[in-house]
Amino acid sequence: MSGTLALVGVGPGDPELLTLKAARILAEAGVVAFPQTDAGAPLALEIARGHLNAAATLIPVPLPMAIERGPAQSAYDAAAAAILAHLQAGRDVAFLCEGDPLFYGSAMYLLTRLAPRAPVVVVPGVTSLTAAAAAIARPLAARNETLKVLPAPLPDAVLRAELDAAPAVAIIKVGRHFDRVRALLEESGHASAAVVVEHATTPRQRVTPLRAVAAGRRPYFSTILCYAGAEDWGQQEGIA
Amino acid sequence: MSGTLALVGVGPGDPELLTLKAARILAEAGVVAFPQTDAGAPLALEIARGHLNAAATLIPVPLPMAIERGPAQSAYDAAAAAILAHLQAGRDVAFLCEGDPLFYGSAMYLLTRLAPRAPVVVVPGVTSLTAAAAAIARPLAARNETLKVLPAPLPDAVLRAELDAAPAVAIIKVGRHFDRVRALLEESGHASAAVVVEHATTPRQRVTPLRAVAAGRRPYFSTILCYAGAEDWGQQEGIA
Repeated sequence: MSGTLALVGVGPGDPELLTLKAARILAEAGVVAFPQTDAGAPLALEIARGHLNAAATLIPVPLPMAIERGPAQSAYDAAAAAILAHLQAGRDVAFLCEGDPLFYGSAMYLLTRLAPRAPVVVVPGVTSLTAAAAAIARPLAARNETLKVLPAPLPDAVLRAELDAAPAVAIIKVGRHFDRVRALLEESGHASAAVVVEHATTPRQRVTPLRAVAAGRRPYFSTILCYAGAEDWGQQEGIA
Repeated sequence: MSGTLALVGVGPGDPELLTLKAARILAEAGVVAFPQTDAGAPLALEIARGHLNAAATLIPVPLPMAIERGPAQSAYDAAAAAILAHLQAGRDVAFLCEGDPLFYGSAMYLLTRLAPRAPVVVVPGVTSLTAAAAAIARPLAARNETLKVLPAPLPDAVLRAELDAAPAVAIIKVGRHFDRVRALLEESGHASAAVVVEHATTPRQRVTPLRAVAAGRRPYFSTILCYAGAEDWGQQEGIA
């Protein structure tokens, strides 16, 4: 009788932004796996720490961040095997996911390996996208507008085409692509209303208008929100 | 000394998908406002009901759903005035928002009216977007793929242009646009991998492959997820 794998979204950073469901599952979980990147402290674990069962077995899943194919594949294979051993012994396993498990998350690489072999449930979480919007109290998109989520590592030509006349855009995974992306946002006319949100909802949260940010690398967990309607969404509906 | 307005995301439907922060704020809130549309029971209130303080004053905010300008404007004006009276009397007010307050929500119309007059905080919530992905246990988007959120009421020409070669698309606000949108997804090559998720995370949740859905209107709270990579995201990384 296999245990169940729960892919648990732990939200963007503030431990209070876990869902009640995530908190309940983590309080009960006997085995908790978490992504361990090269980039320092394991964020998902830091977020969830206060909600874990003190007796839980912790399994770090080492994930090379920069390289998503090749070498990463064997890391996922090894992690899947370690988790599968617990599942086959009948133990439930929770895998902690920053934000939401299926919004650009690494959980999908475990999902594809383990879903054919054990029951899997997904607990959705608050994404960094809506957390960034909350930090600046501005809509991501409204009414019948298209919202585009664009990873910053995309090539210039792709970003340029997607930015053309787009009313609402969020650039994610900014990191070392900041200068290049800012130049493209100047070109496309989004720069004046754009805001950079770093580490949303954490004690390190920083909110800066795009044009006021110093040149150079930004954190990987930065989002640039560009809502072209931002300057007139208030006026359109009339301020009471 | 003004009270604070909290725009509180209550998540996609399952009351357990409120965040701990939302639950705490609602347990404390003396005044709770909620959207009341023409479309039946007030969903945000239904979701949050078990978390409210029994002594809270409830303020329904009547919102005409179909017409977002004109007549709606006076409804928002009236709602903002009612809420402002409480804030100015020093009482905190929580406004319940289905999903997340700033992801296509009506909260922005209160935000624009009240932010100049009282402190406002936004509590992000789980969106119907990631809830729908969780329901089918499939990624929304991965790696450096663009994710597009497209409201179904957009004109054919706009949808056609956005769908062209888009790897990951979510169609929201499906409702009466279902047949038209399905035809466009057949044209664009998204149909074979597309799934319709209705009322995600609620007891009425229904998950159906796009091509198996009967013609005709679908619920407003339906999302069509089209992840072109869905057929090979497993294979790309190799199944262990």
